[in-house]
Amino acid sequence: MGVLKGACVIGQSGGPTSVINASAYGVIKTALESDVITNVYGASHGIIGILNDELYDMSKEDPEELKLLLNTPSSELGSCRYKIADPDVDDTDYKKLLEIFKKYDIRYFFYNGGNDSMDTCNKVSRYMEKMGYECRVIGVPKTIDNDLFGTDHCPGFGSAAKYIATSVAEVSRDNRVYPTGSVTIIEIMGRHAGWLAGAAALASVCGEGPDLIYLPETVFDMDKFLTDLTKIYKEKKNCLVAVSEGVRYADGSFVSEAKTSATDGFGHAQLGGLAAILANVVKEKTGAKVRGIELSLLQRAGAHLASQTDIDEAFMAGKVAVEKAVEGVTGMMIGFERDMSSGSYECKYILVPLASVANAENTVPLAWINEEGNGVTQEFIDYALPLIQGENSRVTENGLPKFAKLKKIKAE
Amino acid sequence: MGVLKGACVIGQSGGPTSVINASAYGVIKTALESDVITNVYGASHGIIGILNDELYDMSKEDPEELKLLLNTPSSELGSCRYKIADPDVDDTDYKKLLEIFKKYDIRYFFYNGGNDSMDTCNKVSRYMEKMGYECRVIGVPKTIDNDLFGTDHCPGFGSAAKYIATSVAEVSRDNRVYPTGSVTIIEIMGRHAGWLAGAAALASVCGEGPDLIYLPETVFDMDKFLTDLTKIYKEKKNCLVAVSEGVRYADGSFVSEAKTSATDGFGHAQLGGLAAILANVVKEKTGAKVRGIELSLLQRAGAHLASQTDIDEAFMAGKVAVEKAVEGVTGMMIGFERDMSSGSYECKYILVPLASVANAENTVPLAWINEEGNGVTQEFIDYALPLIQGENSRVTENGLPKFAKLKKIKAE
Repeated sequence: MGVLKGACVIGQSGGPTSVINASAYGVIKTALESDVITNVYGASHGIIGILNDELYDMSKEDPEELKLLLNTPSSELGSCRYKIADPDVDDTDYKKLLEIFKKYDIRYFFYNGGNDSMDTCNKVSRYMEKMGYECRVIGVPKTIDNDLFGTDHCPGFGSAAKYIATSVAEVSRDNRVYPTGSVTIIEIMGRHAGWLAGAAALASVCGEGPDLIYLPETVFDMDKFLTDLTKIYKEKKNCLVAVSEGVRYADGSFVSEAKTSATDGFGHAQLGGLAAILANVVKEKTGAKVRGIELSLLQRAGAHLASQTDIDEAFMAGKVAVEKAVEGVTGMMIGFERDMSSGSYECKYILVPLASVANAENTVPLAWINEEGNGVTQEFIDYALPLIQGENSRVTENGLPKFAKLKKIKAE
Repeated sequence: MGVLKGACVIGQSGGPTSVINASAYGVIKTALESDVITNVYGASHGIIGILNDELYDMSKEDPEELKLLLNTPSSELGSCRYKIADPDVDDTDYKKLLEIFKKYDIRYFFYNGGNDSMDTCNKVSRYMEKMGYECRVIGVPKTIDNDLFGTDHCPGFGSAAKYIATSVAEVSRDNRVYPTGSVTIIEIMGRHAGWLAGAAALASVCGEGPDLIYLPETVFDMDKFLTDLTKIYKEKKNCLVAVSEGVRYADGSFVSEAKTSATDGFGHAQLGGLAAILANVVKEKTGAKVRGIELSLLQRAGAHLASQTDIDEAFMAGKVAVEKAVEGVTGMMIGFERDMSSGSYECKYILVPLASVANAENTVPLAWINEEGNGVTQEFIDYALPLIQGENSRVTENGLPKFAKLKKIKAE
């Protein structure tokens, strides 16, 4: 491949994470330092910003402010959830994209997101190729859910896992403080994959693990749950439960959406989510003091607890994306491969064809869930533990986080 | 006062905080080093442990493990919520206490808790005096609610405030990530006092403050709330709300317990707490994407974000309690006085008569709440900001917190 001179654009898409900005920084910093990339643009709210011609000139930003992206949660360029059409069905958006790419001489497109975003990436890549417009397209992965196909793990997961494990450990101490007994149910994100709920088990490494963990990969049985819980509660006078928001009954319906379930005894819509529903069922059944806690946005925004390993890898994914694109790679997502050959964890990048990633889903292997379906195995812990290592060196000011505040000057 | 030789006991009581163990460590370490204190006992689950003759010998603990108490959340000795009778009405418990005190030659009683615990402390102090049993009784304050009377602020508040402000700042970034708009409502502890809800405003110091804050000190008006919120949402396409769990309607009823409120349109009990109730009302009214987040136990257990200022002061409160008791002080709580004479914040201890603290409540001055009743003034921020300063130096292992694990060897 020859040298391809031109501008690049980076967009962020889907639900944010604690480290998606570290990936963006990896792209932006590396692109700004490149000899062949002529301009570096950030798209406002992902693909929508490109379609609306809302691009920011990253060269106008203060380098020190950009560096703060390493510890700034959420998607600083703005995100979107925009499902782009199949170009063979409707190429309106693609024509517009091509127009904007030509306007700014964009020859590099980096898209920072999850499953859907890799699908977008793949479609854009194919369209540009079909139209004979030379443009190198690379996907930069992110998702707290860790469900991206073709990679050992995904930037964003390690930090959310560290947040979850630390919070579970802390709440575990609180849950057993009174002699009168107490049950706490912690609801964790991950609608289709149980990686995050499983991460609660990491707290067991410091002796504070939950008693029961339920993942969406196995069928949720309310009676079995109540039996398991009651047994533990009777023995210990307390019980800590971690449960994925995505757990479902045998008929496929989400427990969180149960409206007329005989087992929970309610005939109306629940407002408070799964943790509140389960807390109420347990309260009725056991008479215990029960709290439901939903980690909600906290777990994906908790940058103060981001794992340094995750930050470093997220940055590397962005950096390698630019380096590989400049070398001529296109139509790929940056993925990770785990190397344990030295005896300790090392992470190496790999290139994964976008077409293979798009819309595939990587769930927790059933062999990593215990036989009772209420916990994970040591294999799961061995897998996840390296990803939460390293206390980050975030910048604080006045005892508060100092997040990046970009000037976002519109590209000319 | 002469030298009083004898043993001491420390008990922890009420809802735990991130730093109540730092106070316990202040007591235990100082007492172990004292020449006149012969034995140092920890009571299992506060006053209940004394009544049940369940005391742990603190001299049997590893000093390094005890030191980990500085960063260990919850009450490591165990807590209780035990309302002791008035000794003039029923002196059963007091007789038992005296029996145990005599058995172990306990001459120093340190009680680490909030309002109710100071009441217990006061009653025990008066009873022992009446019975002619020389015993010095000192209260060591704790509460995240910051509602203790007679002290500028209370150990536990600063750390919870730092957790809240940091979490609000992080969620604030997440709340405005999509172009489609979003409302997030964060429910914060503090049933009668709005110090913690007000602490959400500290996030404004780093430019990420909530748009609206509601404290229990003012009447909550659902229509006014919806008007305020809708105005902001229309302007900005997003809105971040912090609300105390204790907000009440003009008739005195808790908004969180509203069962038949015409304004929220529901005729049944809500499960998910205040945030879920308000989220649903806002969703119906505005059609916006709304999330309710309840910080729940996370805010009082979040030791990883404890303010070093708070940890230091909590330790000092315990240390001074022992020093003063040894000097002859009794019937007092250790309180704090703020000294700004050097131009910057300094904290000095004071002695507050237990009788004046017991069952009194310190709420947010109305002058520190804005005229609209939906935010706090700069005075509030100036008051609270010094208390969240200092990143703590907690010990981690395997990327997880390393909490104190005491051996808890029963006293002989």
